[in-house]
Amino acid sequence: MNRIVVFLFAMISSRRLVAALAPTAGGNRVFSRTSFALQASKPSGGGRVSGAVQDQNLLDKTTKQDSPQQKGRPQLDTNPPKGTRDFYPQDMRLRTWLFDHWRAVAKSFGFSEYDAPVLESEALYVRKAGEEVTTQLYNFVDKGDRAVALRPEMTPSLARMVMAQKGGLPMPLKWYSIPQCWRYERMTRGRRREHFQWNMDVWGVAGPEAEAELMAAMVTFFENVGLTAEDVGIKVNSRLVIGEVLDSLGIPEEKFAVTCVLVDKLEKVPIEAIQGDLEELGLDRSVVEKLLDVLTNKSLDALKGTLGEDSQAVKELSQFMTLCEAYNIQNWILFDASVVRGLAYYTGIVFEAFDRRGELRAIAGGGRYDKLLETFGGVQTPAAGFGFGDAVIVELLKERDVLPSFESTGVDTVVFAMNQDLYAPAVGVASVLRKAGQSVDVVLEGKKLKWVFKHADRIGAKYCVVVGADEYLNGEVAIKDLSGGAQKSVKIDDLSNWVSDEQ
Amino acid sequence: MNRIVVFLFAMISSRRLVAALAPTAGGNRVFSRTSFALQASKPSGGGRVSGAVQDQNLLDKTTKQDSPQQKGRPQLDTNPPKGTRDFYPQDMRLRTWLFDHWRAVAKSFGFSEYDAPVLESEALYVRKAGEEVTTQLYNFVDKGDRAVALRPEMTPSLARMVMAQKGGLPMPLKWYSIPQCWRYERMTRGRRREHFQWNMDVWGVAGPEAEAELMAAMVTFFENVGLTAEDVGIKVNSRLVIGEVLDSLGIPEEKFAVTCVLVDKLEKVPIEAIQGDLEELGLDRSVVEKLLDVLTNKSLDALKGTLGEDSQAVKELSQFMTLCEAYNIQNWILFDASVVRGLAYYTGIVFEAFDRRGELRAIAGGGRYDKLLETFGGVQTPAAGFGFGDAVIVELLKERDVLPSFESTGVDTVVFAMNQDLYAPAVGVASVLRKAGQSVDVVLEGKKLKWVFKHADRIGAKYCVVVGADEYLNGEVAIKDLSGGAQKSVKIDDLSNWVSDEQ
Repeated sequence: MNRIVVFLFAMISSRRLVAALAPTAGGNRVFSRTSFALQASKPSGGGRVSGAVQDQNLLDKTTKQDSPQQKGRPQLDTNPPKGTRDFYPQDMRLRTWLFDHWRAVAKSFGFSEYDAPVLESEALYVRKAGEEVTTQLYNFVDKGDRAVALRPEMTPSLARMVMAQKGGLPMPLKWYSIPQCWRYERMTRGRRREHFQWNMDVWGVAGPEAEAELMAAMVTFFENVGLTAEDVGIKVNSRLVIGEVLDSLGIPEEKFAVTCVLVDKLEKVPIEAIQGDLEELGLDRSVVEKLLDVLTNKSLDALKGTLGEDSQAVKELSQFMTLCEAYNIQNWILFDASVVRGLAYYTGIVFEAFDRRGELRAIAGGGRYDKLLETFGGVQTPAAGFGFGDAVIVELLKERDVLPSFESTGVDTVVFAMNQDLYAPAVGVASVLRKAGQSVDVVLEGKKLKWVFKHADRIGAKYCVVVGADEYLNGEVAIKDLSGGAQKSVKIDDLSNWVSDEQ
Repeated sequence: MNRIVVFLFAMISSRRLVAALAPTAGGNRVFSRTSFALQASKPSGGGRVSGAVQDQNLLDKTTKQDSPQQKGRPQLDTNPPKGTRDFYPQDMRLRTWLFDHWRAVAKSFGFSEYDAPVLESEALYVRKAGEEVTTQLYNFVDKGDRAVALRPEMTPSLARMVMAQKGGLPMPLKWYSIPQCWRYERMTRGRRREHFQWNMDVWGVAGPEAEAELMAAMVTFFENVGLTAEDVGIKVNSRLVIGEVLDSLGIPEEKFAVTCVLVDKLEKVPIEAIQGDLEELGLDRSVVEKLLDVLTNKSLDALKGTLGEDSQAVKELSQFMTLCEAYNIQNWILFDASVVRGLAYYTGIVFEAFDRRGELRAIAGGGRYDKLLETFGGVQTPAAGFGFGDAVIVELLKERDVLPSFESTGVDTVVFAMNQDLYAPAVGVASVLRKAGQSVDVVLEGKKLKWVFKHADRIGAKYCVVVGADEYLNGEVAIKDLSGGAQKSVKIDDLSNWVSDEQ
């Protein structure tokens, strides 16, 4: 992997381009309208979390996967569909390592795993606020004339599942999932169309205790994989801020969601670029400028000065910050009024995890969405959650060099029969070792001993058990320790004990 | 669940209808043409494994999910798309339990996990043998005019991945995966359109050592989940049998695959129903009858009598049976010449796991497919594998009553603050318990103690830690053992030790 190329792409694609270039320490994004112009050409990551990242593999492979389907097909196109990934065993071990960490944290926090179909009704994502997540839907009409979509995010499926139980689920719910989520966008090349996304959600809790618990889980994950508050920060804001400003300006509540989405877009494009959207929304440019002015606040005290003592937004954010101290995660958290997030349904606290060096896109994002169920025709139920994609975090972990090695297959022992007559005993030996708890690779073909040792080394095995004629006559096998190189004979009847002793 | 209804559906949908009704012991399917008529209306399970089963939930819910998308949408349709499932936490715990067992066996046998996109190019499944797996493709054209499909099976993706490495993967490969696979069929109702399928494959091994190793892994799984050779059998055959018959009749080799698929269909429909297919294939009816005659052989000795001493099929099957004895799985295995399996690409040994009572569809199926890579334009590489769906096995495990309970959430301890002032200390206590390895559920809202105990009982927690004012002044918390009911005070500083002691 060419690190310089990666870095350049990260720069170009980063929301934090300005922050990365400017000498401002601490990684805070410089939020000003002049910076928008610099980022005008950057497509938004959108959604609950910035899903797609530049995919070096795709870039390397150029346009091969774009070639039209060959009818004669002398040779199949061996690439996975555009924007998708294969997981070879080594890739899979990395993915499993990541998922295991996500699951361990979720379990530690008492969350239960759930899942929903990757294919959902398109109706689940029909929202009119112009969010990227809904405009870049991977949707199609199936053979039964149903409008369906590969899910772009998990929250609507979760809401559907909660609603389907018609109040039969005892609240609060603490649920998590690791869905694969999809997007379809035509314009740019080399960006992934799928990613896996850790979702953690709390339903039925109205106070910021829910958000703080979610945040603590996220921080625990960061700590567990070797990251510190020097590497990662979590910006927090509340959409109540925008709500209060709109309220003070007499803007009706129905414009809240679409305004939030629009303000989020202003991070990436200059205000002129969405002048049309503004007019359609009926928002005076001065309203937007007032909003942007408020959103430059970088401290709760400053915000209090702007919104006043009685601001509900300030109160809730202050309470949240106190809770973060109870969890001892305050070093990770910073208030940043410019964080809005691009999803229409957020109603309260919103947050975004980012790398402090400002080189990568958002690592994770989330917030409170108390009215989502209501928009589906269900009973209003308080809810908060986050989505945490598998792409950016891996980039960051590689960057910080804290990933373990995924080269070893995890096989303990390779079992080899010196000749065909000894194959049945070798299989018996393998069965004993497996029953004793070992991961055992049996050499299924007639091979030379030299090949076997090379093979065992390549897959990272610890031992090689050779079933040879002489030893077998004595009821023994030869065991070679592949780390030290020592070799000894062990009675076949004692193999279980040998496994116990070695562990 | 209405067991009688389930049973009746299982009967109606079973390949083994006749076997289930007839007094033949041992569960061997009665293979005769008179039985086809009884099963004529039954859609084939098809594919590598009989994927879809009757879905009682769908049947219960009648046609709600068929209703056209409501434009005004006062309330969202809360059903998942037709033929798909939601996994609520309890369903998910069952699924995780199953997947964990699959993964544990695969690891024990030294197999490495891989994955590929659920969405693949349709070209991957273009085969002209009339298999159900390809005629019931969940395919569509995406926005980029690409013909794509939700994968119906994993083997073509695996072949694509092997081929993409252009020989760069050291053989043999022992890989496994647990993909979700999809099908689309219009005709019948109440059958699932997706299932998860454990795939185990060995590439690069030409001999039946590969199939025997795969079979041993499958049997190990059955044993690990509490099934015996009384519950499950594995029928084994080789397509070399059909090959040798066709050869002896002078039928050219290019008709081999399509003949196999056709013979597989003859299990379910009378020969008259596919007379057209036969004619198109140019196969004389007498050829088919000769084939069917050979396929009634139920012992290797009888087959040897039919095919002769030099039959390669008989030799390979005999060798395979000997290998099964080495693994000590011979009680699970039976030869049955009628097993053909419905996939075009199988070339040698084929097998099918079935429940001995003959009530359910095939549990798993697989075989050797030495020429698949060649049909993709790659280098011919020996390969064998199996697919093992998540539906039938769960039905069987429920039937045999060997499933554990999935009611408990796995939470160890519920932590509760008696009042808002004690919430921060409660969070601190939770953090200590989590760091010590417990799964901890913090009560995030002001609740009554009575609710807390009820909640802790409902989620199956073992302990309840109550942070009360008096105890906290002493640096203590109250711990109630929810199984025994005993309560004691523990110093907060000693909580880590308490966790160690309780484990």
